[in-house]
Amino acid sequence: MNDAASVDPGTAGSGAAAMLRTLAAAGVRHLFTNPGTTELAFVAAAGDVPEVQAVLVIDETVASGAADGAARMSDAPGAALLHLGPGLANAAANLHNAAKARSPIVTLVGDHASDHRNSPSPLQSDIEAIARPFSAWVGVTASADDAAAATARALDAARDKRGPATLVVPADHAERTTPTTTAEMQASQSTGVDHDAVRHAADLLRSGGVAVLLGGRALRADTLVLADRLAVAFDADLWAPMFNARVERTHPTERPLRKLPYFPTQAHQVLGNYRAVVAIDADEPLAVFAYPGEPRRLLPDGVEWHRLVGDGGDVAASLGHLVEATAAPTTRPRSFVRPAAPDGESLDPTLLAQAVAATMPEFSVVVDEAQTSSLGVWDALAGVPHDLLMLTGGAIGSGPPLATGAALAAPGRRVVNLEGDGSALYSAGAWWSQARHGLDVTTVVAANRGYAILDLELARAGNRGAARGPLTRLDRPVIDFTALATAYGVPAVRVTSATGLVAALQQSFATPGPHLIEACW
Amino acid sequence: MNDAASVDPGTAGSGAAAMLRTLAAAGVRHLFTNPGTTELAFVAAAGDVPEVQAVLVIDETVASGAADGAARMSDAPGAALLHLGPGLANAAANLHNAAKARSPIVTLVGDHASDHRNSPSPLQSDIEAIARPFSAWVGVTASADDAAAATARALDAARDKRGPATLVVPADHAERTTPTTTAEMQASQSTGVDHDAVRHAADLLRSGGVAVLLGGRALRADTLVLADRLAVAFDADLWAPMFNARVERTHPTERPLRKLPYFPTQAHQVLGNYRAVVAIDADEPLAVFAYPGEPRRLLPDGVEWHRLVGDGGDVAASLGHLVEATAAPTTRPRSFVRPAAPDGESLDPTLLAQAVAATMPEFSVVVDEAQTSSLGVWDALAGVPHDLLMLTGGAIGSGPPLATGAALAAPGRRVVNLEGDGSALYSAGAWWSQARHGLDVTTVVAANRGYAILDLELARAGNRGAARGPLTRLDRPVIDFTALATAYGVPAVRVTSATGLVAALQQSFATPGPHLIEACW
Repeated sequence: MNDAASVDPGTAGSGAAAMLRTLAAAGVRHLFTNPGTTELAFVAAAGDVPEVQAVLVIDETVASGAADGAARMSDAPGAALLHLGPGLANAAANLHNAAKARSPIVTLVGDHASDHRNSPSPLQSDIEAIARPFSAWVGVTASADDAAAATARALDAARDKRGPATLVVPADHAERTTPTTTAEMQASQSTGVDHDAVRHAADLLRSGGVAVLLGGRALRADTLVLADRLAVAFDADLWAPMFNARVERTHPTERPLRKLPYFPTQAHQVLGNYRAVVAIDADEPLAVFAYPGEPRRLLPDGVEWHRLVGDGGDVAASLGHLVEATAAPTTRPRSFVRPAAPDGESLDPTLLAQAVAATMPEFSVVVDEAQTSSLGVWDALAGVPHDLLMLTGGAIGSGPPLATGAALAAPGRRVVNLEGDGSALYSAGAWWSQARHGLDVTTVVAANRGYAILDLELARAGNRGAARGPLTRLDRPVIDFTALATAYGVPAVRVTSATGLVAALQQSFATPGPHLIEACW
Repeated sequence: MNDAASVDPGTAGSGAAAMLRTLAAAGVRHLFTNPGTTELAFVAAAGDVPEVQAVLVIDETVASGAADGAARMSDAPGAALLHLGPGLANAAANLHNAAKARSPIVTLVGDHASDHRNSPSPLQSDIEAIARPFSAWVGVTASADDAAAATARALDAARDKRGPATLVVPADHAERTTPTTTAEMQASQSTGVDHDAVRHAADLLRSGGVAVLLGGRALRADTLVLADRLAVAFDADLWAPMFNARVERTHPTERPLRKLPYFPTQAHQVLGNYRAVVAIDADEPLAVFAYPGEPRRLLPDGVEWHRLVGDGGDVAASLGHLVEATAAPTTRPRSFVRPAAPDGESLDPTLLAQAVAATMPEFSVVVDEAQTSSLGVWDALAGVPHDLLMLTGGAIGSGPPLATGAALAAPGRRVVNLEGDGSALYSAGAWWSQARHGLDVTTVVAANRGYAILDLELARAGNRGAARGPLTRLDRPVIDFTALATAYGVPAVRVTSATGLVAALQQSFATPGPHLIEACW
């Protein structure tokens, strides 16, 4: 049993306060949470560490996704505070996405007090076992005095292992008074630049027939501008993987950056056009699904795979060395050219993308999870400077939480969240947090009333009979997304035409705070 | 790579069809699912096995919770079909509740085809590791020919281990043609009756000062009536644990069945009044949370704990033998007496419980997850025959899914779901499935605009300063539950008085289909 005398629920000297201070020292500014009884010490301590704002969410899938969004849009880790095993489980799908995005996020999970956590009480579960499949690192605080140091270890792990670090915090460790009020992170363990890999990449580029595949850190503006020099100098093509945590499309390039196609046969054909692929912080591309008769590995036999730099290396420095080794000159970047605003009574994914590109403010942050309705987005939005955040792990429902975290991490920038209807339903509760904090998020739900990807897959499998059947349609009853948004405090409007969509977007972009547009066709 | 020639997506001879047929043979009538590309064979086969209705949900937490609800209200297992690791993760919190409820449910999880499931593609994860913390049994199909037999093994395990059995199904095993079209379950492995335990229980009852603690299977009508005979004959008290999967309160008893209090000190005091506790399918009660200075074990030292029957035993037979051994005569059950309908302009948890008890149809199924607003429910509803289903594992958001599954498993009975606002937000998507299937579910959301339990806990911890702070309140913005229900196709009304609530309940009970009442105070 706890010694009640040493418990300090809510003053500045608790283990919870020490953990919040350690997060603050690492640059964490928001802690996304739906706390419960085991996290009361954090609730009580929240006011004592004003650098870290506690952001309430109504479902933990919003917490992990928003932490991911904050991490993607800042140079600091994201952070979430979850309630026991069930809270962690509710957050797990977006932890999966964060792990695939290689987002450094720290997830604190409150557990029962240390003398109760192994008893089979109703809320007991094996939190570490739940965390492991979704975490790059899992730890447990040893005591209140260890709370700050354990938090620093989690921060180190999230940065060095590039993924979610989950720290289990027994309630007494958060509640008790400790003289250790903060802890510092250790230096990063980067392996820097692999000069042999730089030399071989230079040789490949000089020989021609190269695709440069840019992933992860390489999709930031500074590295894209460097990669563009290689592409122009050696007539190489620039490719991005299908799914990317963040593409910083804010600085124009001379060569276009293209995105690998979704279906395996097409991607396999694209990569078959090259002699070699130079991968810069990108993994060898694999099919999302294993379709009968289609390839799993997207790199054809005979195409050389050369990794310039990956996990643990210094991406920007490696690319800089390669540019220097090849003496690739600076480029003549094209200007951004917005498409004209579409008009007329019809609406489809192409018109949707054009309408957004025509109207959105420069340097918006676009969170694209519109699935089958996203097809035109990559190309249309190339005409406007923006950041593009995508679903990375296929666990749908990442968009509204990512938008929430991105809006908090990038104040002053409009966030445009393009959502599928099926996806939005997984985390629509994020809209409440957007309303609560007055975030400048414009959500466009492409409401095609179904899981269109399944209809497409069924058709591809030659099983048209089952297509558009009861298990792929959201049309009985039709879900009213304007009512859903209004329920959560977000003003909403429904449009059915390109003209209507453009007007609704313009109105939203001129109005502070969140807004939702249900786009039907 | 799959051999495309042997893949049979959607005809009656696929592995998926064999699995559905095996579920049907075990009495499964509903498969709750949000399928994806890896489950297309099930989508295609669904029409071939009409005994099992595929019920679409918009979030997997509804699937697992509805499977639990169906299992609780029928004598067959519940079943869900989930999409890869993320779908399983989204379902996990209600699998936790199902595990604590000891509900026999079978969860099929589609995985990538067997030649792709260990590749680090975007949707890859260690599904078995994700399942283990929430499952009584985890397995993987070996082939399409094994699909039916593996399903039977999962069904056996769910029954014998009394909990979720998770079966991972690589897509090719579901897709391929197999001559094995169904499989049968093995006989149950029950250990029957422990006659020594019966004798000792009889001795304890004869000595007096006994509490009979009834859990799990012992809370069904047949066993409650038997336990009542013991209580009357030996002046014993009948107690139920705090949280119960299903209490069949359909047959009146002479002695009341009471429920242990939530807070540990109070429960500890209650049990301290007895010399011995005879436990019938109940575990030793533990504190939900470890409060400083309060007990963790609720059974005081010196009170004998005697388990008559638990996991693996025959509960009804054991109790029957005990009644026979003690020659306890039949009782004179009291009549059900409904409370009068409350009226007036005010509303609170007590009036809410009275209004429901005064109006609900006999033999309704009540799903109670109203948390701090549930305080009056147990006593008020004792006056009307009904079944009571509760949150068992503390993972909030179980109510709307349980109500959905219960309504499908118990057609002709009205389901009354009493929800807290914080809880409802975890699985409000269940309302869409209720609308889709026209289920007779009346949901009452007790909208106190906050996580009132946290305010209560903070006050108990002496930290009133943090109470009703930004992390415990749902009031900025207020969530409009009538708009939320309407968005999902469920008609809804808001009431603020006892008179208004009674009228709204009466209207709902007279109208087929789902209905939501937002009760504010």
